[in-house]
Amino acid sequence: MRDYAQPQFSLAEIVERFGGELVGDGSVAIRQVATLSSAGEGHFSFLANPKYRSQLSSTGASAVVVAQADKELARIPHILSTNPYAYYARVAALLNPPDTAPPGIHATAVVGKDAEIAASASIGPNVVVGDGAVIGEYAQIGAGCFIGAHTEVGTQTRFYPNVTVYHGCLIGERTIVHSGAVIGSDGFGLANEKGCWLKIPQIGRVRIGNDVEIGANTTIDRGALDDTVIEDGVKLDNQIQIAHNVHIGAHTAMAGCVGVAGSTRIGSHCTVAGSAMIIGHLEIADRVNISVGTLVTKSINQPGTYTSSIPSQPHRDWLKNAAQLHHLTDLAERVKQLEQKLSQLEGKSS
Amino acid sequence: MRDYAQPQFSLAEIVERFGGELVGDGSVAIRQVATLSSAGEGHFSFLANPKYRSQLSSTGASAVVVAQADKELARIPHILSTNPYAYYARVAALLNPPDTAPPGIHATAVVGKDAEIAASASIGPNVVVGDGAVIGEYAQIGAGCFIGAHTEVGTQTRFYPNVTVYHGCLIGERTIVHSGAVIGSDGFGLANEKGCWLKIPQIGRVRIGNDVEIGANTTIDRGALDDTVIEDGVKLDNQIQIAHNVHIGAHTAMAGCVGVAGSTRIGSHCTVAGSAMIIGHLEIADRVNISVGTLVTKSINQPGTYTSSIPSQPHRDWLKNAAQLHHLTDLAERVKQLEQKLSQLEGKSS
Amino acid sequence: MRDYAQPQFSLAEIVERFGGELVGDGSVAIRQVATLSSAGEGHFSFLANPKYRSQLSSTGASAVVVAQADKELARIPHILSTNPYAYYARVAALLNPPDTAPPGIHATAVVGKDAEIAASASIGPNVVVGDGAVIGEYAQIGAGCFIGAHTEVGTQTRFYPNVTVYHGCLIGERTIVHSGAVIGSDGFGLANEKGCWLKIPQIGRVRIGNDVEIGANTTIDRGALDDTVIEDGVKLDNQIQIAHNVHIGAHTAMAGCVGVAGSTRIGSHCTVAGSAMIIGHLEIADRVNISVGTLVTKSINQPGTYTSSIPSQPHRDWLKNAAQLHHLTDLAERVKQLEQKLSQLEGKSS
Repeated sequence: MRDYAQPQFSLAEIVERFGGELVGDGSVAIRQVATLSSAGEGHFSFLANPKYRSQLSSTGASAVVVAQADKELARIPHILSTNPYAYYARVAALLNPPDTAPPGIHATAVVGKDAEIAASASIGPNVVVGDGAVIGEYAQIGAGCFIGAHTEVGTQTRFYPNVTVYHGCLIGERTIVHSGAVIGSDGFGLANEKGCWLKIPQIGRVRIGNDVEIGANTTIDRGALDDTVIEDGVKLDNQIQIAHNVHIGAHTAMAGCVGVAGSTRIGSHCTVAGSAMIIGHLEIADRVNISVGTLVTKSINQPGTYTSSIPSQPHRDWLKNAAQLHHLTDLAERVKQLEQKLSQLEGKSS
Repeated sequence: MRDYAQPQFSLAEIVERFGGELVGDGSVAIRQVATLSSAGEGHFSFLANPKYRSQLSSTGASAVVVAQADKELARIPHILSTNPYAYYARVAALLNPPDTAPPGIHATAVVGKDAEIAASASIGPNVVVGDGAVIGEYAQIGAGCFIGAHTEVGTQTRFYPNVTVYHGCLIGERTIVHSGAVIGSDGFGLANEKGCWLKIPQIGRVRIGNDVEIGANTTIDRGALDDTVIEDGVKLDNQIQIAHNVHIGAHTAMAGCVGVAGSTRIGSHCTVAGSAMIIGHLEIADRVNISVGTLVTKSINQPGTYTSSIPSQPHRDWLKNAAQLHHLTDLAERVKQLEQKLSQLEGKSS
Repeated sequence: MRDYAQPQFSLAEIVERFGGELVGDGSVAIRQVATLSSAGEGHFSFLANPKYRSQLSSTGASAVVVAQADKELARIPHILSTNPYAYYARVAALLNPPDTAPPGIHATAVVGKDAEIAASASIGPNVVVGDGAVIGEYAQIGAGCFIGAHTEVGTQTRFYPNVTVYHGCLIGERTIVHSGAVIGSDGFGLANEKGCWLKIPQIGRVRIGNDVEIGANTTIDRGALDDTVIEDGVKLDNQIQIAHNVHIGAHTAMAGCVGVAGSTRIGSHCTVAGSAMIIGHLEIADRVNISVGTLVTKSINQPGTYTSSIPSQPHRDWLKNAAQLHHLTDLAERVKQLEQKLSQLEGKSS
C-alpha cells in the first residue's frame, strides 16, 4: 500500500466536500484509505458489504463511512451515506491524486507537422505524434506512446506508456488508456475469393467518449466503413477485444478477457463479466448483465442477467457427465419412448 | 468514414481493371465505397447478402456490383460479378491505398551492425533493428518496433508501430503485422523437477509466409527445437495466442482471442471463430471450421464444422439447467433403470 | 533450429555437471539438443514419453538420456536419469546460453533522477527508467521498456523489449519478462453511483518473486489497497490476465490465455491449463490442477484435477445436443414423473 506523504484532510473537511452526515469528532485527521481489517491511525475505511459488519467494532481506522442501517455499529467517528462504497471511492481519489508529469514535450519525442499540442499537455520520452494530431489541455501521453496522424486526444486524457493509437481516431476528455492498449487497428475484414482472402480496407475510425477507461493490452479495431464507437463513461478492463463497428453504450463496464465481435451494438449500463464472448451483428439492450465465461449468440432485448457458463467439477465426475453431454439427444429420445410405453401400460392396467 | 481527396476512377476504368460485366453508364465517377444504405453520390456499393436486396432499389450509390441473379434489381449503373463481395474488396483497396511512410531510416532509429536495410524501406522513429537483421525493399517498419538480431523481413511487408519480433525469425513478403503483436517470444517449455520448473531453451524460430496478416496484440511463440510456422495467406485477428511449434496451413483464418496450444498442426483453408481453443499435439485436417467459443481436444481428420459452445439463457433458467448438468450421469442411470423396470412390467402385462 | 557455433561438451563432462549414470563412450562430442526423430551427429536427445520408445533404436543422436526402465533400448552412449526430461532441460540450457547484451546504459535511454542502475546491468535503446527506480546487477532491460518510478528490478532479471512496468513495483531476481507484458496497471476497481462508475484509486503494488517467467502480452494489475503477489518460481505463459490483489503461490504454472479475477488466492504447485478462468475472491488449495477451458466459480480446498470444459463434436450432432441442454430441467422432471408412475404401476401389478 502506498503510504507516502499525502494530502491530509479532517473528517469535517471530507464531509464538507462530499456530503453525508457526520457523526462524532470531525477533527480527526485522515491521510489514507484502508480496509476495515488492515486500517490504523489516520485511515478512513468503509462498510459496504454486510459480511464485514463484525469487523466494524474492531477496526483500527480513525473514521469510517457506513450506511444508515449500520449506524448503530459504528463506535468511531463516522459518516452516514446512502452509498458508502461510492463515498469511499471519492475519499480514496481525494487522498491519492494521480502523479502527473510536467507539461511540455520531452526532448526525445517526435512530433509530426501541423500537430497541435496544448501547452499544458505532457508528451513523454520517445512519444511519436503523427502529422495533424491534436493533443488537448492537460493531456498526458506516457513514454513510448504512438499517436497516429490526425488523431485527436481530449482535455485531461491520460495515456500510460506504450499505448498505440492509429490515425484518424477521436479520444474524448478525462479518458484513461492503459499500457499496451491498441486503438484503431484494422478490423478483421476479408472477402474470400477462390479460397484466398482479400483484405478489405478499414476506413472507419474509433471514436471514444469522455470519462472512459481502457485496460492494459485491450484492443479496439477501427470501423470498416462507419466508426467503432465507445460512448461516455464506458469502463473496459484488460485484454478485451472490441471488433470493428462495435458500438458500446454509455456507462457499460466489461471485465478482463471479454471479446465482442464485429458490428454488435451493446446498450448502456450493461455489465459483461470476465471472458464472456458476444458474437457479431447482435443488439444487446440497456441494463443487460452477461455472466462470467458466457457466450452470447443471439440478440437480447430485455434487461436482466444471461448465462451459459458451466462451473467446474472434480475431473472424474466431470468425465462421466461430459460423456453424457454428447448423448443428450439419445437420452431425451429414450425418455420420450418410456413415456409412450408407460402411457400404453397405464391404459392397459386401468 | 474516410472521405479525404481520393484517387477517382470511372466505372469503366474499374471494369477494365477487375473484369465483370458493365451494365449502364461507364462514365460515372467513383471515389469511395459505402454500404447500400449509407451510400451517396460518387459511392460504389455491393449486394452480397440477399437480406439487403430491398436496399438496392433505394440506394443513393452511383454504382453497385451485384451477382447475375440480382441483375434485374439494379436500376443504377452496375457491374455483374460472380463474387460481388470480393469485387467490392478490390474496388475498396483501389480507392483506399494505405498511407505509406517515406523511405529511409529515421534519425532516432537504432540499427545494429551488419543489418541490411533496403534503400526503399522505411524505418520509423525509435525503431531498433538488431545486428544482422534484413529489411526488404519497400518494407515499412512503424515507430517503436523492435526487430531482433538476424530476423528477416520481406519485401513490402508492413509493421504498424510497437511490434516486437525476437531474433532469428523469418517474415515473408506483403505481410502486415499490427501494433502490439509479439513474434518469436519463448515457447512455454518447462520440465518439472521435484516440484520446481526448469526452463527449456526455445531454440526454434518463427517462420511466417507471404500475404499473412497478424492482428494487434497477437502472440506467436518461437519453436522449442523446430520452428513455429505460419504459411502463406494466413489471416490472424487480434489477441490470438499461437504456441511453440504450431503449424498453420495456407489461407487459414482465425478470429479474435483464439488460442492454439503447442505442436498442433492446422490444415489449409480452415476457419477458427472467436475465442475457440485448440489443445496441443493435434492434427486438424484442411477445410475444417471451428465454431465460436469451441474447445477442440481431439484431432479432426474430416472437413466440416465442429462445435462445443453453449449459447446463453436467462440466468434463472440456466441455473436450473446447470444444476442438472452436474447430475447427468445420475439421470442417465435413472433412465436405464426405468427402461429395465418397464421392460419387466411389459413382460408381466403382455 | 539454432545451429550456430555452440559451446561444446563431451558426454562425460555433462555427467560430471549434472550427475546420472554414464553408459558407453563418454568422449562423444555434444553440441546441440534435438528430438529423437530429427537428431544427428553431435546431438543429444531424450526419451521421456513411452510413446517414442520405438524412435530410440533408429535415432541419429550421438547420445541420449533415458530412464532406468528404458536402458535396454539404448544402443548409443547414454545417461541414465530418474528424470530424463529435466536432465534434457539442463543440457539444453548448457548448450544454449541466452544471448546477453553488453553492460551499460544505451545513449538513447532516458533515466530519471535518483535511479540506481548497477554497473553490470544493460539498459537497451529507448528504455525509460523512472525516478528512484532500482535496476540490479546483471539485469537486462530490452529496447523500449518502461520502468516506472521507484520500481525495483532484481539481479539477473531480464526484460525483453517493450515491457511496461508501472511505478512502485518489485520484481525479483533471475526473473524473465517477455515483450508486451504490462505489470502494475490499475486494477479494475469501480464503485457505481447512480448508474455511473467512479474509479477507485489502485494504491497497492505488484510484487513478483525470484525465478518467475512472465509471457508475452500478459498483464498483472497492481493491488487496490494491498499488493498483487506472484511468488517465487511461478511460470505464466502468454496473454494471461491477473487481476488486482490476486496471490499466486510458489511454483504454480499457468498456460496461455488464462484469466484470474480479483483477490483470488491460488496455492503453490498448481497448474492451470490454457483459457481457464478463475473468478474472484476464491481460495484454491496447493497442488490443484485446472483443466483446459475450465471455469472455476467456487473455492477448491482439495488437491486434484477440476474440469468443466466440453469437447467439440461435429456441428450437426452438437446442434441437437445443445438444444437439449436448454431443456435439462424439463428432462429431469419427466424422468421423475416416469419414476413415480412406474412405481404406482409396479404397486398395481405386483
